[in-house]
Amino acid sequence: MVLTNGDVDHIGGLLSLREGHSFNVWANKSVLQQLRSNDIFGVLDPDLVGLHEISPSFDFSPLPGLTFSSFEVPGKVPLYLEMGTAPAVERRGNTIGIHVRSGATKLSYIPGCGAIDAQLLSDLADTDTLLFDGTVWSDDEMREAGVGTKTGKRMGHVSISGNDGSLQGLQSLRATRRIYIHLNNTNPLLVQGSQERLKTEAQGWKIGFDGMDVFS
Amino acid sequence: MVLTNGDVDHIGGLLSLREGHSFNVWANKSVLQQLRSNDIFGVLDPDLVGLHEISPSFDFSPLPGLTFSSFEVPGKVPLYLEMGTAPAVERRGNTIGIHVRSGATKLSYIPGCGAIDAQLLSDLADTDTLLFDGTVWSDDEMREAGVGTKTGKRMGHVSISGNDGSLQGLQSLRATRRIYIHLNNTNPLLVQGSQERLKTEAQGWKIGFDGMDVFS
Repeated sequence: MVLTNGDVDHIGGLLSLREGHSFNVWANKSVLQQLRSNDIFGVLDPDLVGLHEISPSFDFSPLPGLTFSSFEVPGKVPLYLEMGTAPAVERRGNTIGIHVRSGATKLSYIPGCGAIDAQLLSDLADTDTLLFDGTVWSDDEMREAGVGTKTGKRMGHVSISGNDGSLQGLQSLRATRRIYIHLNNTNPLLVQGSQERLKTEAQGWKIGFDGMDVFS
Repeated sequence: MVLTNGDVDHIGGLLSLREGHSFNVWANKSVLQQLRSNDIFGVLDPDLVGLHEISPSFDFSPLPGLTFSSFEVPGKVPLYLEMGTAPAVERRGNTIGIHVRSGATKLSYIPGCGAIDAQLLSDLADTDTLLFDGTVWSDDEMREAGVGTKTGKRMGHVSISGNDGSLQGLQSLRATRRIYIHLNNTNPLLVQGSQERLKTEAQGWKIGFDGMDVFS
């Protein structure tokens, strides 16, 4: 398991695994701190589950033949650590992206990202396959759908559309395979044939789905 | 939500609910302590989620027309709080059962129970509908099936079969409707037509299933 932040949708699944499974977890310092400070993760038996700290300064290799590395992206503290005030979206070790290299090719996995900035474009400059945060199409779609009061930004997710969005912001990258992942159920990209989906597909993006074969 | 102990299979589901849901939780002191001491349960917004402490000494009423009360049963501390040694199965405030009364009729819900003793029989003496811990048929079935090393007792669950089991131990109760619930996937009661199931059904028990209507 490679974890990219400490929010419940990233670490909560560790509690649903059958007791006694043996596996390894790679995560950065702040995420491992959450796993260690919440007693409930004591279900992960230290004799069976290895916790490995990663940082942007060194590679790791969870799978033979693949070299992984991490890089910070704009993010926020996990919801459950917010202290009643809206946290800043910034690079503070809360959220990371993952590069996976095999020979000369490179895949980058960024399920959560709060903004598109020059550092991000630099980190993704030589990426061939890009899996990027597709949580919301527009910043206020949850409120418009009547299912929540928060904007995408407030949850640490940059929208796809708009001048500050990822569709425009990532356009200059050379990645030949681009896939939006981590889609919220309010995202119109989930609707086959929607205007938003047609526009996104026309710009070379695919829309992720459960069971997708990334390289097919 | 009425919680009967602090193990992950009882409290972990709270983390899978959509952020922003409004609901109430009733649990005893030790379970509420876990919810409060594990930061991750901070996803339960105090403005939306009420946490209510219950104890055997007073009734509560989560639903109009129904009166709930709790009673201690033999149990153990949650797995993640075990300190490397096998904990005792005893009445120490870790595990409770729930009575639900409507007029003169009474349902008792006990998804986890470590032993059948005189106090339990007394607590269930006037129960009409009994939903009882059916985790394992025999104490060592997980080991025999090769899926684990723990016995039922080690997990705080009395077996159904055997001289100390619940089938024999609860036989004298007057409950006219009896249902085994909380069945582990190694339990032969899950197999339609198995000898174990036929024997159990012959003694007046039904075997719970997802979507069951208890009173049909």
